[in-house]
Formats: sequence, C-alpha cells, structure tokens
Amino acid sequence: MATTVRNRSLRGGIDLGGTKVQAVVVDARGTAVGQDRQATPLTGGADAVVEAMATALRNAAKAAEVSPADLAGVGVGAPGAADTTAGTVAQPPNLPWKEAFPLGPKLAKALGTAVVVDNDVRVATTAEFALGAGREYRSLLGVFWGTGVGGGIILNGVPWHGRGAAGEIGHTIVHPGGAMCGCGRRGHLEAYAGRGNMEAAARRKIKAGTNSVLLKITEERGIDRMTSGVWARALEHGDKLAHHLIDRAVDALGIGIASAATLLDVEAVIIGGGLGVRLGQPYVDRIAELVRPQVFVRDRPPAILLAALGDLGGAIGAALLVERGAPARATA
Amino acid sequence: MATTVRNRSLRGGIDLGGTKVQAVVVDARGTAVGQDRQATPLTGGADAVVEAMATALRNAAKAAEVSPADLAGVGVGAPGAADTTAGTVAQPPNLPWKEAFPLGPKLAKALGTAVVVDNDVRVATTAEFALGAGREYRSLLGVFWGTGVGGGIILNGVPWHGRGAAGEIGHTIVHPGGAMCGCGRRGHLEAYAGRGNMEAAARRKIKAGTNSVLLKITEERGIDRMTSGVWARALEHGDKLAHHLIDRAVDALGIGIASAATLLDVEAVIIGGGLGVRLGQPYVDRIAELVRPQVFVRDRPPAILLAALGDLGGAIGAALLVERGAPARATA
Repeated sequence: MATTVRNRSLRGGIDLGGTKVQAVVVDARGTAVGQDRQATPLTGGADAVVEAMATALRNAAKAAEVSPADLAGVGVGAPGAADTTAGTVAQPPNLPWKEAFPLGPKLAKALGTAVVVDNDVRVATTAEFALGAGREYRSLLGVFWGTGVGGGIILNGVPWHGRGAAGEIGHTIVHPGGAMCGCGRRGHLEAYAGRGNMEAAARRKIKAGTNSVLLKITEERGIDRMTSGVWARALEHGDKLAHHLIDRAVDALGIGIASAATLLDVEAVIIGGGLGVRLGQPYVDRIAELVRPQVFVRDRPPAILLAALGDLGGAIGAALLVERGAPARATA
Repeated sequence: MATTVRNRSLRGGIDLGGTKVQAVVVDARGTAVGQDRQATPLTGGADAVVEAMATALRNAAKAAEVSPADLAGVGVGAPGAADTTAGTVAQPPNLPWKEAFPLGPKLAKALGTAVVVDNDVRVATTAEFALGAGREYRSLLGVFWGTGVGGGIILNGVPWHGRGAAGEIGHTIVHPGGAMCGCGRRGHLEAYAGRGNMEAAARRKIKAGTNSVLLKITEERGIDRMTSGVWARALEHGDKLAHHLIDRAVDALGIGIASAATLLDVEAVIIGGGLGVRLGQPYVDRIAELVRPQVFVRDRPPAILLAALGDLGGAIGAALLVERGAPARATA
C-alpha cells in the first residue's frame, strides 16, 4: 500500500525530438529519478516512434524501480500541433507523419498508463519557468536552439499562446531575403540557427570542396545527422566551417532575441535546446553580449540565461503535464 | 443643474506630438463633440508646450460649448516615459525637455481641471481596442506610423506593458547593420519608416542633388517639417524620391510587423499614426500584402486594419484616461 502511494507520486515525461526520444521519471518535486534516451527511428513510421517512446519510458521507469502502469501518468512534449484533448499531434517537423496522429492513445495502450500530450516548446518553457532558470521571474521568453529554433512566452506567470502559435521566434525575419528556411520563406532566424539548416549548409559547403571535420566526425560516430555533439566536437577541433556557421547562428540569435526582447520587454530570456544546452554558458554569454546593446531600454536588459534543466528540461516539463489534468487512467 | 450633469459626462483629451497638439472633448460614448489642433511650439521650451496644450483644449471645449473647468477631467497622451501617478513625462522624443517634467500638474493649473497623463502609444492602442478598429478583437498589436514608429500590445483584453517599455516595434531590427535610427542603433524599423528619419534621408538626398518636390511643398506651406500631408502631396505628384522612401518604409513595416505577428500571434494588427492615417487604406493594404505571406501560420494571418479613430484616435484615447481614475479635481 505504501509502495502504491509512493509510485503514484511519480510521473513520467517524454521529450520527443527529431533526433532523440528522452524519457524521465520524476518525483513530486520534479526531480528526475530515472531516465533513458533512444534514437528517434528513421524507418517504420509513426508506430516505430511510439515503440521507441515506450521503450525509453519503460527503461526510465526501470531505473526508478517502478512499473509504467504504476505512474500517475506520462506527459509527452512533441513538436508540431498538439491537441491536448484528443492526444493527437499533427505536422510534426522531422517526424514521419503529417495528419493528426493519435500519439497519446497509442502510447497509453503500449504503456498501460494515462498519457497527456502537448507541444514540446510550451512544455520546455513551462519547465524552465516552474523549476529551472526562470524560477525567479514572472515574464520570460524561452528560446530553444536545436534542430529548429522554437520559442515560448510566459507573461505575468501565464503562458501566452496567442491563437495557438505564439512564440515562433525561429520564424521571425533576421535577414530579409536571406537564407531559405525549412518553412519555405527566406531570412528567418531558424534558417541561420536551426541545426537542420546548419547541417544542410555544411553539407553543401563540404560537397563544394570546403574542408571540414563535421562530416568525418558524424561518420566516425556511425550516425547520419550532425548532432549537437558533432558540432561541439568540431568547434573544439577549431574547424573553420563549424565556427563560421555557429558564428552566423549566434549573430542571428542576437538579432532575433534583441527584437523579441524589445517587443515583449520580458524580465528574462532563457536559452535551451539541443545546441543551446550542449554549447552552454560561453555561447549564451556571446548571445547576451549581442542582445544587450540592441534592446530598446539599454540600462536594464533582460537577464539572459542558460536553461537550467539541461537536456532533461523537455522531458521534465512533459512530466509536469500530468499534474495539470491527466485522465485517471489509460484512455486507449 | 441638468447642465452641470451633462458637462461632467464630458471629458477632454490631448494627443501631444512632436508636430502638433490635438485636443478633443468627448461625450460619455467617446464621440468627439469638440476639437482643436495647435502646432507644437518649437521655441519657448516646456512651458510653451503646456500653453499650446491649454489653448487647444480651451478651443475644443469652446466648440463643445463647455468650460474646461466643467469637464470631468482631461487626459493627455504624451511621448516618452509617463509617470501616471506624478503626472510627469520624461525624455519625450521631439519635445523640448529631458528630465521628468510635471506636465499634468502644470496643465491642471492652467485649465483648472484634473489632468491624467499616460504614454501616447498606450493611449492610442487602448482607444482603438475600446472604440476603434480593434473593437471585435481580444488581442492586437497597434502600430503607430508617424514621426517615429510606436507600438502597443493588448493580449486577452489587457494591455501588456512588460517592464514599462513593451511594444517598441519601431526599435526591432529589420535590416541588421542598416540605416541609423534616432536611438543610435542601426537597422531599426523606425530608421526606415519613422517620418523623422525619412525626412532626414530626403533632405540628404535633395542636398546631394536628387530632384524632388518634397522640400518645395514644405516651403510653400510655410512649415519647416515634412509633415504627413507633405508626403501625401508629393506621392500624388508622382515624386520619385517620395515614392522611393515610402516604398522603403512600407517594406520595413512589412518585415517588422510580420515578425511581431509571428511572435505574438495576435488576432489583429491596427495601423495608425500620422502617416498611417494620412496615407490610409491603400497603404495598409500594401503592408498587409507583405505581412500575410510572411507570418508563420499562413492560412490564418491576423486581420490588418487601418486605425478607425483616425487623427483623433490619440486624443480620444487620452480622454478615456479620465474614466480610469482621474483625481476628483485639479491637483496643482
């Protein structure tokens, strides 16, 4: 009986990304007591993604010495348009489906526990606000520098979603008419700072004859994407192409964040995401140095902080979804 | 007795700009029943500005067949940092003082009625939300295209002020490293679209030999600034320089508004200000055509609307301040 009560205070969280699936089990205070990471499958479609999520969550639960069915529920942060009521996710970038897919019900069936689904960036922003670098602030902008560049806004302690798509700082214009973004428009922040677009630019340059260790490191690791770890390693090597593309990304982030901070006048900007967390404080400092002189009220720029929950922020944030109204049991 | 009751339902409002002082007297429904306009004095310092404001308000009251002292109060929308409690205004661009100046108390003394002071852009945004083009919406961005480019944000029916300076869309970056803005930074929207910066650019071009009627129209009117009316007339003339600079401003507004609308995902964008109102619907349509394909969610762009209260919007909005907590009588 005591065990059941204890387990019910545990919640699962999954951060579903285009590259990896990060699962955690957290206690009542939001501390991770078990975790696992799986590669996001590139073949097998949506069902394979669900299976990888279930595996990651089972492993995280095992590490926490609990069964998935004994958790209070599992929250999922997913890219794309999440319908929190239906548990569906539509048009997730870098995942193998387009139409609304019943990710919540499918995963609930696989795990035998309740599942709540929401957008990954919202989830990560809320996590940093509630438990991370944003704890001291009432208004903040979260910038998630990863495969894409996502953003979340919290004003007066409340997330601002607009008509469902607020915060998309990655699709604000930093160089009009400039580099092509994955969304088909030019000059967006994400066209310069999104890892996906950076990788495409790197591959073009290498193919055209530019010397770089980026591809070599990727191949040596037996992976087919230039992950944040690959970029970090190439920078350590002093790779000129990596430095050039990262510098360009940092510049673009400086411009986009300065404009957003001027418009919103929030207390803090929190920089997370795969690249943000991997490159860490020195790069957040560089971005801050670009932002501070560019915000409208120069004598009190926002605090510009590295996400405090690190790589686990998205998954911990997803676990917080369970608190916010999970159904009492599996719904599928 | 009946007369007194009627008069007390009348409120005064003053929109203080760098070029003109617009005063109105409005009835209980916010309809202007008297108005007057004075040029903002270029000599005589802050006291001359107070005197011009008092004159404009007295004339507006006369047109409404009421004495200033019989109004429920007078609201003032002023550029710069307004302290609504003290009635002071600090660092107003294009006005002849820097430190906090007791505009409210001075004007209250001159008029013998209560005066409330707030920032002009906030006031105009609230007016469009409450009575103008924003009536149907719960969230909007107001863009005031005039001497500068100001912006106001209303989210879920509530103004968002941030830490006091939210909405400054004129100081978001549209062309990094581009034209110099009045604030000392480069590439800001206001550097391209602010009437002040446009005039400076026009004068430089004309001095360097570019042919244009802009200066001729200005001089023929016996004024020393290229007002919105001068720009409108030059456009009608087919003046190439005027068209070039206005096109550049429209492009910059398209970029800045697209980015802001993507970030905020508001229902509506309302374009007002001296130039916005003077150039009117055709130019709002041009801006809208640039913004729509650039916002992140293309299939439901925000409504992009011309300010409905026109030239009087700022003054009518200022009159609404009286409702929101004017002292019962003159405080100076």
